Amino acid sequence: MKNPTIEGVIIQPLKIIADELGVVLHMLRNDDPVFEKFGEVYFSEIKPGSVKAWKRNKNQTQNLAVPSGEIDLVIYDDRQDSTTRDSLFNCTLGRPDHYSLIRIPPLLWYGFRGRGDAPSLIANCSSQPHDHATSEKIHPESDLIPYTWPT
Amino acid sequence: MKNPTIEGVIIQPLKIIADELGVVLHMLRNDDPVFEKFGEVYFSEIKPGSVKAWKRNKNQTQNLAVPSGEIDLVIYDDRQDSTTRDSLFNCTLGRPDHYSLIRIPPLLWYGFRGRGDAPSLIANCSSQPHDHATSEKIHPESDLIPYTWPT
Repeated sequence: MKNPTIEGVIIQPLKIIADELGVVLHMLRNDDPVFEKFGEVYFSEIKPGSVKAWKRNKNQTQNLAVPSGEIDLVIYDDRQDSTTRDSLFNCTLGRPDHYSLIRIPPLLWYGFRGRGDAPSLIANCSSQPHDHATSEKIHPESDLIPYTWPT
Repeated sequence: MKNPTIEGVIIQPLKIIADELGVVLHMLRNDDPVFEKFGEVYFSEIKPGSVKAWKRNKNQTQNLAVPSGEIDLVIYDDRQDSTTRDSLFNCTLGRPDHYSLIRIPPLLWYGFRGRGDAPSLIANCSSQPHDHATSEKIHPESDLIPYTWPT
C-alpha cells in the first residue's frame, strides 16, 4: 500500500477479527477521527476486469472499504487550489491483505477496477446521501485524466 | 418474506440497481424514516451452515442487510413490557431474492445462520458504536430461547 500523495486522502488499515464461524470486519465508527457525518451507506459490486470510472462529487466525502474481493482504486486530483494538483494515486483495496478504509474528499476524480475471479463488493459510507445534481461522471478513457485502465 | 410480528422490528425491501459492470445495492440514508443515528458500520461474515447466536444489546438499534450471500435470521422477544413478548420471528435475508433492510431495536435477542455454499456478508449500520458493556451473548442452544437451529 502506497502512502497517499493527494491532499485530503486518508488510508487507514481496518481490523479483521478472526472467528471460526466467519470473520468480523470493521469499517467506520462515529468516534473515529476520519468520520465527519453520516449521509448514506450503500454497496457497489464490480465484476472482475470491469472498470467503474471516472466519478466525482461536489459535496460528498466518500469513505470506501472492500469487505469482499479486491479492487484497484485510482484517484486523480485536478482541484485548482490543491497542493497536489495533477497527481494520480492508486492502490489495491480488499481482502485478505488490503482491508483498509480510504477517505476521498469532494471534487476528486476516482474509479476502480475489479480484481480476482469473482465480483468484489465496495462499501461506501458517504457524508451525504447520493444526489445526482452534485455527481459527475466521465468515460474511463477520457483524455481529461492521464491514466489508462488495463484491458 | 413474512411480516414482522415483533414490536419495533421493521423490514423494508432495498433497491438493487442493475449495471452490466456490477450492481449497486442500497442500504440506508440519513433521510430514511427508519434512520435514527449513525453509530458504526461493520460487517460480519458467516460460513454456510454456521450459526452466530444469540446476541442482544441494551442500547443499540441494529440495521442489517445482506449484500452478499443469504442468511436465515431469527429474532426472539423477551422484553417485559412488549406487546409481542415471547414471540419468535424468522426470515431469510440476502441476494438475489431477499435483499432487504431489517431494523432490530434494543433488547431483542437475534441470531443468524449462513445459507448457500459460500460465506455470506451481513452489514450492520447500528445506532451506536459497539460496546462490550452493553452487549450480551448466550449459547445458540440455550434453553432461554425456544428455537432450535438446524444442524
